[in-house]
Amino acid sequence: MENFQSNLSSVLLDLGPEGAGPLYDRLARALRNAIRGSRLPAGGALPPSRALAAELGCSRWVVTEAYAQLAAAGYVTGKVGSGTRVRMPDAVRARSADRDHGPAGGPDRPTRAEQAARIDMRPGLPDLRSFPAGRWAAATRSAAAALSSADLGYPDPAGHPALREVLAEYLARARGAQADARHLTICGSATEGIGRICRALRRAGHEAIAVENPGWPRVREVARTAGLRIVPVPVDEHGMRTDLFESGGAQGIGAVIATPAHQFPAGVVLSAERRVTLLDWARRSGGLIVEDDYDAEYRYDGRPVTTMQGTGPDHVALLGSLSKTLSPALGIGWVVSPPAWTAALREAPSAPPPVLDQLAFATFLRAGSYDRHLRAARHRYRNRRDALVQALDARIPDARVSGAAAGLHLLLGFEAATGSADDVRGRALELGVRVTTLDRYLCGSATGTSSLVLGYGNLADHHVADGAAQLAAAIRG
Amino acid sequence: MENFQSNLSSVLLDLGPEGAGPLYDRLARALRNAIRGSRLPAGGALPPSRALAAELGCSRWVVTEAYAQLAAAGYVTGKVGSGTRVRMPDAVRARSADRDHGPAGGPDRPTRAEQAARIDMRPGLPDLRSFPAGRWAAATRSAAAALSSADLGYPDPAGHPALREVLAEYLARARGAQADARHLTICGSATEGIGRICRALRRAGHEAIAVENPGWPRVREVARTAGLRIVPVPVDEHGMRTDLFESGGAQGIGAVIATPAHQFPAGVVLSAERRVTLLDWARRSGGLIVEDDYDAEYRYDGRPVTTMQGTGPDHVALLGSLSKTLSPALGIGWVVSPPAWTAALREAPSAPPPVLDQLAFATFLRAGSYDRHLRAARHRYRNRRDALVQALDARIPDARVSGAAAGLHLLLGFEAATGSADDVRGRALELGVRVTTLDRYLCGSATGTSSLVLGYGNLADHHVADGAAQLAAAIRG
Repeated sequence: MENFQSNLSSVLLDLGPEGAGPLYDRLARALRNAIRGSRLPAGGALPPSRALAAELGCSRWVVTEAYAQLAAAGYVTGKVGSGTRVRMPDAVRARSADRDHGPAGGPDRPTRAEQAARIDMRPGLPDLRSFPAGRWAAATRSAAAALSSADLGYPDPAGHPALREVLAEYLARARGAQADARHLTICGSATEGIGRICRALRRAGHEAIAVENPGWPRVREVARTAGLRIVPVPVDEHGMRTDLFESGGAQGIGAVIATPAHQFPAGVVLSAERRVTLLDWARRSGGLIVEDDYDAEYRYDGRPVTTMQGTGPDHVALLGSLSKTLSPALGIGWVVSPPAWTAALREAPSAPPPVLDQLAFATFLRAGSYDRHLRAARHRYRNRRDALVQALDARIPDARVSGAAAGLHLLLGFEAATGSADDVRGRALELGVRVTTLDRYLCGSATGTSSLVLGYGNLADHHVADGAAQLAAAIRG
Repeated sequence: MENFQSNLSSVLLDLGPEGAGPLYDRLARALRNAIRGSRLPAGGALPPSRALAAELGCSRWVVTEAYAQLAAAGYVTGKVGSGTRVRMPDAVRARSADRDHGPAGGPDRPTRAEQAARIDMRPGLPDLRSFPAGRWAAATRSAAAALSSADLGYPDPAGHPALREVLAEYLARARGAQADARHLTICGSATEGIGRICRALRRAGHEAIAVENPGWPRVREVARTAGLRIVPVPVDEHGMRTDLFESGGAQGIGAVIATPAHQFPAGVVLSAERRVTLLDWARRSGGLIVEDDYDAEYRYDGRPVTTMQGTGPDHVALLGSLSKTLSPALGIGWVVSPPAWTAALREAPSAPPPVLDQLAFATFLRAGSYDRHLRAARHRYRNRRDALVQALDARIPDARVSGAAAGLHLLLGFEAATGSADDVRGRALELGVRVTTLDRYLCGSATGTSSLVLGYGNLADHHVADGAAQLAAAIRG
């Protein structure tokens, strides 16, 4: 172990110049190279993040971020507090892919304390209290009244033509998509659509798929279930890093799943340069970009970012759903696919949602109710986000709110007085507030970043101040 | 292409020893390896199954089964008859998924002639003209009015508790099921439920599943997609033959899918002795009986046959849906599972149907509308069946109607003056009548039985006499 420590010191001399990227990246790179080259052998303990931060004269966050990247890539394991160690090369195992309420999330199985929590700040749900129940019921009623015998037979595997037509028009208008109804497939949710894509990729002989790290565990789970290998790609302040996709670096990767308009959970927007890099990769290699447009309708400081699909319809599959705009209980999602992939996405055993729900959504769209709902929702969420950011600033002055002014969640970085982010999460739960940690969205094992992911979509307005106060208490410890 | 043929010959020399598994498996493996290794490049035609069977000195079934495995895995494409070809890796296209309207059927992609047909005698659809649109709309309306915020969150993977409770009560009362709401899972259709079971079997390490032959192709497709090998079991006048399941004969078979109340498509009822044999096998071996109860509500000469699940709830998974009673467009099915299997059927990526539809069905059931609808439907179908049998007797005196007085279809055996059953089907289509042949429900390739499967569920009463007359003409040639 003495050797390990002296090797570590030499690694830290090797961080490279400042121009070579942010410090946490340079640190991660240096450690990675040392681990690869066995200068830091398996089992050795990396220094506690606090100690290393002091040694490097940087914020502790820089170190935890670097460790998180290494953990994501499988080089190290463990938690800050209990020690971060270089991983045994043969012990690369899938972390128990926990479920979340992320972009294409699914249900948690709540514990008793979670059920009892008064304040719900988990990401992934829209405001269920303002679901437009009357207008949805009216749309369902008029769709039911207009049902024909033909509508009652075995449903079109593509989705009902009436919905595909009006939804394609909406996606072109609102999301700048090149949405041709012939290549629009109605499915049960974005996750379900991603499952279809993964199975189609596997059938076509692809073996690996790249995903953002951090990103949502459900997507990794669905891709693994389809038989694909996961390649995690780190995320920085400009979105997913695209170095991998430059000049032949992504050999063997058939597709990449991305959230360009609003990265989940980091909340950053993919830069124009990186969009070009990804599209170039797709054109050059025949790879598929899977664009999960989960909450892009909500942008509070300008117009929504347009879709990559609008630029590269032959290389991008655009996914959306009603889960973040109306309710996940409606069971409606969609995929606009490159023509070459359309038929594969409609193969059995995939099946469309019930016809009545599809026709209800078509009626709701045609009546202008969807646009009206989104306008009201955008206003509501902007105000709620502002109030939350203000309350957090007031209560936890040294915390950092990050992520674009968009969507239904933000990232809260903090210096915990005691313990890890997961300890803070646990204390918040005891105080009646449900939150999630950034760690749970990382590939590989948890690594003790000091960040919480706070959802305000389904947070009641009268809980904003109280929620911030309880979080401050939880962070104080 | 000459190269292709010589490469193919070398592949066939490479089938491996007999101990390495059944011949169709070894054949599929050898071809798969050759396709992967590009020894059989994309676009090349595999030999007709008949020719290859002759060359290998095996039954043609062995070859069609191997081809089916390859098609399911996406290595080849095409149909027996029109040629099986190695798939283009860069042109992922829909495999011509042999969809049908069987018990858990799905949509045909109709040709122009099929769309133009006046008279629909395909099996698998209930009478869509008498769908209780008003009562279903009323149920949807009152369910929508009662939606709570909790109902709008991520749905319970088991299905909504309100539906599970009232449906369990119905299944106990109407189908003699031991239906515990805790082990009742709501899914999208019976096929979708079977898919969940097959994936759960595969995850549990099972490799083979027995199915009735003839039976519905969709089930075989779903089981193959889940990675299970299909073991076809012949059907005679007492239902599925059970010799295989006596005294250790079904080694390696994890489950059997059966339609005991009314075999599809033969229309026979599983004898009491064979029910006992199957249940004994399940008890002894831990095997699972998958009971597809697709149209058992309709029995015209007595009380409906009760379910096997009612006798052996720890060994039988009972499947049902609204597809044959109301409409496949409603997208509601269910599984009552042995407790040991329940959790596995609810794992992601499986998802329940939209909550509103579940609550609408719960309301419809609770109001007594389902019972009322089934009583009226039973009366309607009995009269229609009687009229059809009479018309067929009068027009085609030497034809044989078989199948119990039950359900929504019957089997018509005949001596065609010219050509095969498929020729008769084609001539009927030219005369404006859509029917299916028994052949299409057989495992492997078509074998030239002289039987048609006639569905009268969605046949208009005023088309019965005309339909029989056109069929008589089609059979005369």
